[in-house]
Amino acid sequence: MRVINVAAAQLGPIQRAEGREVVVKRMLALMDEAKSKGADLIVYPELALTTFFPRWYVEDQAEVDLWFERDMPNEAVQPLFARAAEYQMAMNFGYAELTPDGHHFNTSILTDRTGKIVGKYRKIHLPGHSEFDPERDFQHLEKRYFEPGDLGFPVWRTLDGIFGMAVCNDRRWPETYRVMALQGVEMVLIGYNTPSFNSQKGSEGPEKRLFHNRLAVQAGAYQNSCWVVSVAKAGDEDGFPLIGGSLIVNPDGEVVIEAKTDGDELLVHPCDLDDTVFGKKTIFDFARHRRIEHYGRITSQTGVILPPET
Amino acid sequence: MRVINVAAAQLGPIQRAEGREVVVKRMLALMDEAKSKGADLIVYPELALTTFFPRWYVEDQAEVDLWFERDMPNEAVQPLFARAAEYQMAMNFGYAELTPDGHHFNTSILTDRTGKIVGKYRKIHLPGHSEFDPERDFQHLEKRYFEPGDLGFPVWRTLDGIFGMAVCNDRRWPETYRVMALQGVEMVLIGYNTPSFNSQKGSEGPEKRLFHNRLAVQAGAYQNSCWVVSVAKAGDEDGFPLIGGSLIVNPDGEVVIEAKTDGDELLVHPCDLDDTVFGKKTIFDFARHRRIEHYGRITSQTGVILPPET
Repeated sequence: MRVINVAAAQLGPIQRAEGREVVVKRMLALMDEAKSKGADLIVYPELALTTFFPRWYVEDQAEVDLWFERDMPNEAVQPLFARAAEYQMAMNFGYAELTPDGHHFNTSILTDRTGKIVGKYRKIHLPGHSEFDPERDFQHLEKRYFEPGDLGFPVWRTLDGIFGMAVCNDRRWPETYRVMALQGVEMVLIGYNTPSFNSQKGSEGPEKRLFHNRLAVQAGAYQNSCWVVSVAKAGDEDGFPLIGGSLIVNPDGEVVIEAKTDGDELLVHPCDLDDTVFGKKTIFDFARHRRIEHYGRITSQTGVILPPET
Repeated sequence: MRVINVAAAQLGPIQRAEGREVVVKRMLALMDEAKSKGADLIVYPELALTTFFPRWYVEDQAEVDLWFERDMPNEAVQPLFARAAEYQMAMNFGYAELTPDGHHFNTSILTDRTGKIVGKYRKIHLPGHSEFDPERDFQHLEKRYFEPGDLGFPVWRTLDGIFGMAVCNDRRWPETYRVMALQGVEMVLIGYNTPSFNSQKGSEGPEKRLFHNRLAVQAGAYQNSCWVVSVAKAGDEDGFPLIGGSLIVNPDGEVVIEAKTDGDELLVHPCDLDDTVFGKKTIFDFARHRRIEHYGRITSQTGVILPPET
């Protein structure tokens, strides 16, 4: 048994006008609750420190950059790092990263029990578009504000296990989980901000969006025999609703706990990393069963190549 | 609209002592029913012509070869080909293939409306083991009786669409669907024989097995925006139960129809191949969103490579 108590810390909405100090206070309250429930690790969502700003079309880059963090940790998040270290609790959250040389990423970090950053991941699968799109019900400008991650899908040994990270839309891509599972990942930490409606198909509402959220995460866990912790920023941000549905999925693909609200909500579950072993040794023993000689297209071509017309 | 009426023709059990003529008669009855319901395509399961023989440990290769087909079509299945052509119905079924030069494959074929074989697929992900395993509750000797498929995951243009095939355990591997989707697949046809209990974990029974069946197929459909038709051989074969749960899943990952029995049962559903377009052009537009530079491990390594110990 290698049980770690995981706290999935869903955040409710953050309005555009709200500063980081407001949300950090809410994150600390969730951390206190997690401590009282014996958590070893707390997982917050993607872009946890600000509103989901890719919905806003802003031309002035200086204004855009106000949503980004130049250092991590920085003054605004210092209380989080300090309290996590005091509680000896590992921590994962997402934020918009602006590097010293001017690159913009949608980033997620993992700290160990001492508050030291041991892992950094930069979102690879950026959804949406890069120019204002008048045909959408609302904008989703991730391809404008971020570059695709440049760090691959690494894994890290910490908390006596092997951990990986992904961000939002990454969770819909089986490649995400597979690359980490090929490095033995035992738990994948995911944060997301998912609009409750499809901006290009208004009839696709929250029920369908929650179904897809669950389906992608459950399949990723099952097909790679790993735990997945997937945490939302949820609720109504300036009139734009985001789904909740934060959840923890076991290596059998089963949801073990799921959020019931669209607000700040803590889900705590004891996750035995040894539950990953059976699947990894039997049906998903990659070494015995995978046939890479037939997977070539997955890495040799990005888009679709149709068969010749007959 | 490119609607094709698909008949998923689940088969109940075939006992070891039963000959091909018995099951061909049952397949013809299902085909007649499909015709009466206006089907354009009928899909039968994996190894449709015999019992699921990999549960039997047989040392005499000549005896094993009795379960294999040396020609396709052959005399036993000729009535199926003739009636399908008469009905102008495309057809897909699985069988054990013995090639003229002595190779053994777990094969699936697709015919067009004239009864001509237009596609052949040989199962790539063989589960189980190759030697008698006294630790299992029952044997699963696919790695003994078959070689891994050598044809990759091709797709075929027929019925005004793009079709692919997979067999049983292939459906649990996201690589299966992805390689076909990179060729524009619109409908994947799958047959399976899945024991109701895990031979290495007796506590994993039919409920869990049906859940995994559904999960893998739904994720494959959603993540590749294609239809999936997945058809069981079900029920009790000589005391060994197989799950049913045949189903058709739409490109949104939703089950549109599902078998209710463990016997011969026909599911007919009108599938619009144009329903695949929205997903392929938006969230799963591979050309815009995939990042193959970070997927390298998927094709460069078969098994897990753990990160260094810290």
